[in-house]
Amino acid sequence: MAAISSLDLLAQQQWRYATKQFDPDRKIPKEQWSALEQTLILTPSSYGMQPWKFLVLHQDQALRERLVGHSWGQRQVADCSHYVVFTVRTEITEADLTTYIELIASVRNAPTSSLDSLRKMILGGVINGKSPAQQQEWATRQAYIALGNFMTSAALLGIDTCPMEGIDPAKYDETLGLKGSGYATSVGCAAGYRAAQDKYASLAKVRFPASAMIERR
Amino acid sequence: MAAISSLDLLAQQQWRYATKQFDPDRKIPKEQWSALEQTLILTPSSYGMQPWKFLVLHQDQALRERLVGHSWGQRQVADCSHYVVFTVRTEITEADLTTYIELIASVRNAPTSSLDSLRKMILGGVINGKSPAQQQEWATRQAYIALGNFMTSAALLGIDTCPMEGIDPAKYDETLGLKGSGYATSVGCAAGYRAAQDKYASLAKVRFPASAMIERR
Repeated sequence: MAAISSLDLLAQQQWRYATKQFDPDRKIPKEQWSALEQTLILTPSSYGMQPWKFLVLHQDQALRERLVGHSWGQRQVADCSHYVVFTVRTEITEADLTTYIELIASVRNAPTSSLDSLRKMILGGVINGKSPAQQQEWATRQAYIALGNFMTSAALLGIDTCPMEGIDPAKYDETLGLKGSGYATSVGCAAGYRAAQDKYASLAKVRFPASAMIERR
Repeated sequence: MAAISSLDLLAQQQWRYATKQFDPDRKIPKEQWSALEQTLILTPSSYGMQPWKFLVLHQDQALRERLVGHSWGQRQVADCSHYVVFTVRTEITEADLTTYIELIASVRNAPTSSLDSLRKMILGGVINGKSPAQQQEWATRQAYIALGNFMTSAALLGIDTCPMEGIDPAKYDETLGLKGSGYATSVGCAAGYRAAQDKYASLAKVRFPASAMIERR
């Protein structure tokens, strides 16, 4: 049950590019934005733990202008329709694990004892097996799955994006009041509509040849 | 120019789950697999550098059986239709940068001197600004964008996936002959079709409430 043809999928991926200039007057319609928030929530993550929180900056224009200053002056942060800051847990604690196990038990109406082997696996692999810095990096990798999912989903809806790695995460944390919250900034992504004059829209896509990128065995 | 409605996008994302049991007799048709390879190639990456190579394991069944042993015995590796190993550069060198700048110049028919400011930015941010371990981690984050893109694209084509983080990357590198190649295993992803008897397919999706995942400002 495909929802789309291969050709349409590829056409949208060809259409997508890292938008440098957004049209500040065009806003993503509510129903589509709400769908994009849902795709963020539905993103797969390791063990299903969802070690993240997505900050959606849309209303507070002054806040977005302040963040431009911590993004190498890149205007996408302020000019796009919705700017998402992907934040991740700064550590993964046993309390996080308990909360997660209780969530599964409640959603699936199962006794928590039936989840003991999952609990042990996560305890060994993530909680006791990693330092806080490694846990944050693990969470960051998961956030990049969300970033990939978000950009592809947006392209399929005809919405432009620009991933924002060129940001100062510590300054973001300060500006967004994240210090001490247990969450830290990993990456940003601007979403909206390309400005008619963005010359990057028409540049040829630069990719290494498939023979260098794909190896079949 | 949306290629899909919000409702269809969400329906496919709801349909997707981490497939535990694949039907070993069902193979992804050539045309669709080729499209999925293209989506991998089209994945956005930081500075557009594409610090990866995608190994597609399809033909060599014995190799896939060996990898099951380095994947906590998870049968998805051998039973799926196509198994992708996302490998990344173990370091990013100035030679990589030169190759990349020359690629842009050639694709866009521009003198390399016109790319000097980009070169300087990457030199400072990635080549000189990071240790090899940090470069590999940077590359790994990019690979997770590809992973997110891949799983979403597959779901839209009605193709099942299972991300495979529970693998032994060092053993993968050994088995796949990657040592000394400049590439190392980061993560895997199985693609194909769920087995009729996979009981995980019908389990309710477990997500924290939107109010805990999304914060609007």
